[in-house]
Amino acid sequence: MSEVYATRRTRLRERCNAGGSAAALVSRPANVRYLAGSAPPGAVLLLGKREDLLVCSGPPDDRPTEGRPDEALRLHVLPAAGGDPAVAAADLATAQGADSLAVEEHHLTVARHRAIGSVAPGLRLADLGNAVEQLRVVKDEEEISCLRIGAEIADQALGELLESILVGRTERHLALELERRLVDHGADGPAFPTSVATGANSGRRGHRPTDRRVEEGDFLSVCLGATYRGYRCEIGRTFVIGTSPADWQIELYDLVFAAQRAGREMLAPGAAYRDVDRAARQVLDSAGYGEGLPALIGHGVGLEIDEDPQLAPTAMGKLDACVPVTVEPGVHLPGRGGVRIDDTLVVRPEADGGPELLTITTKELLAL
Amino acid sequence: MSEVYATRRTRLRERCNAGGSAAALVSRPANVRYLAGSAPPGAVLLLGKREDLLVCSGPPDDRPTEGRPDEALRLHVLPAAGGDPAVAAADLATAQGADSLAVEEHHLTVARHRAIGSVAPGLRLADLGNAVEQLRVVKDEEEISCLRIGAEIADQALGELLESILVGRTERHLALELERRLVDHGADGPAFPTSVATGANSGRRGHRPTDRRVEEGDFLSVCLGATYRGYRCEIGRTFVIGTSPADWQIELYDLVFAAQRAGREMLAPGAAYRDVDRAARQVLDSAGYGEGLPALIGHGVGLEIDEDPQLAPTAMGKLDACVPVTVEPGVHLPGRGGVRIDDTLVVRPEADGGPELLTITTKELLAL
Repeated sequence: MSEVYATRRTRLRERCNAGGSAAALVSRPANVRYLAGSAPPGAVLLLGKREDLLVCSGPPDDRPTEGRPDEALRLHVLPAAGGDPAVAAADLATAQGADSLAVEEHHLTVARHRAIGSVAPGLRLADLGNAVEQLRVVKDEEEISCLRIGAEIADQALGELLESILVGRTERHLALELERRLVDHGADGPAFPTSVATGANSGRRGHRPTDRRVEEGDFLSVCLGATYRGYRCEIGRTFVIGTSPADWQIELYDLVFAAQRAGREMLAPGAAYRDVDRAARQVLDSAGYGEGLPALIGHGVGLEIDEDPQLAPTAMGKLDACVPVTVEPGVHLPGRGGVRIDDTLVVRPEADGGPELLTITTKELLAL
Repeated sequence: MSEVYATRRTRLRERCNAGGSAAALVSRPANVRYLAGSAPPGAVLLLGKREDLLVCSGPPDDRPTEGRPDEALRLHVLPAAGGDPAVAAADLATAQGADSLAVEEHHLTVARHRAIGSVAPGLRLADLGNAVEQLRVVKDEEEISCLRIGAEIADQALGELLESILVGRTERHLALELERRLVDHGADGPAFPTSVATGANSGRRGHRPTDRRVEEGDFLSVCLGATYRGYRCEIGRTFVIGTSPADWQIELYDLVFAAQRAGREMLAPGAAYRDVDRAARQVLDSAGYGEGLPALIGHGVGLEIDEDPQLAPTAMGKLDACVPVTVEPGVHLPGRGGVRIDDTLVVRPEADGGPELLTITTKELLAL
């Protein structure tokens, strides 16, 4: 694995040097993990002129950390109460002879940026921008394999829940049970707070579980994901409780299903982000649900649950092969409830069979 | 409740005006919640020259949010894809005639700060510093009551776990069960990721639960907390598994207990933060465990689990009445395990009976 991280750092260094900076300071935790194999709390990565250093605020053994740091990378451990690793890293960059340092201005606070400036006044601070996030968009097969396992775990947890009795249980309890099952099946933990929504809550994006109990006739919408070796996936499904869904429930379900399929079918290398969004959005729009739709139809996943690209009306850019994204349209009718359907897929060329669906739980409307 | 938030905002406005700024922009979520009653995702609070506004990136009904916004506060809701609420707030500050705006430089990123500067070039940007965090240090009785209920919930969850069979169960499962019990007893959720550590892992601060199973003869250390109405408390206890603790276990336990008691006994209005730290630390130090001790012996709790004050060797300042803090010394012996004991207490004057212990689970060494 060590070569993977070294290669990633080389690619970043090339970008950085091309941008005129001799050294780079990576502080955003998911970016540190991507380049170093692990991101101990507070740690930053210095791509120095002479060598790369993972600068930690304490011995990594004593800190709760996911992943193992790349063994080819030297650790620089600050003493207890040794201050901000980002400030120490700027000092180390200067010691290696760098006269300029690219930092993540979208992550560093103004206060930390100023502290770096004062400890290393000779260092010209530039903006690294989203360079690491951009490297992270296209995944290698190792990364996709982690997402695939995470998706299997989420499918299993959801499948088991559907076999149990649901009526009378609260949203909170169902969410906790799903999270327990994720861990039972080998997840590091949930990829994000599990959402379970019943009745009038159903179909709300990111709904936080309440003490509302599942009742006959409800829509039940569930959104969960597993983290596996740091990689986060997402699945969302909506069910009806009871033997016979009402007509409005069937119609709404079919509509959201059609929108989600339209979005999925647009996933191909070269497809514009906004066209994927539009394909799904216009199905809902032409049925009169254009108002109140979420700002995006899907997004990238990886070391973070919400990463580039954004599949949204104003997003610029095109999909590449090996980019995992969600497609997750939904409609929520205030006071009545609604439907969300959410999959994680990997963009693949048509020659390879088209988009690879990672979350394979059925999307038929199940009456439970 | 509305008056509480209005009074807090008035106190902040006074500080801010005294510092020469006409308006203030609060972006750190816990600070927004403290002043506005709720912090919808991404929302910021503008203390304007004419009126205060909670600037949200979407209708608050559609967003998963804890707490209710103060009804006396006007909401300013941006359209979908309406950009950064902090940038919009700077624009609104200018529209109200402000020529200067204090921002939270320790929270705003360099990129957002720059975006504010470009949308409102006539606005002088100053630093609000930790003004809101400082207001948050001393709690009112309503806040302490939330912490007290949270502590009761954590005590209950822990008490129930101790009645069950522990040998053979994994750290992960015990942690999940504790979190389920927290929610069962009415918590919003865990205050932080529950830590369960057995055998050689025991006594490690912030240990993330693994698949290690509890065995006879182990130390078992547990650290958990409940969030209740946004307020977060913390309790940590260490137990021995089996009928007869080894001598080294009894000695180590007694030592950490003595250190923790020494820290607790120092809690009084007017006591220096560093003296509380030293009281506990020197007990461990004089027994030869000075190396490898954590950077702090305790910290404030409230809307965040780790807030001011820090009870640490170099901390400046003195305790006030009605400040809730943890006292949580621990010793971890690599390869063998260790002990942590952690309480949440509220500083009270001696006339009121001295420090109020919120987490009342026994600190006797229980053999389970």
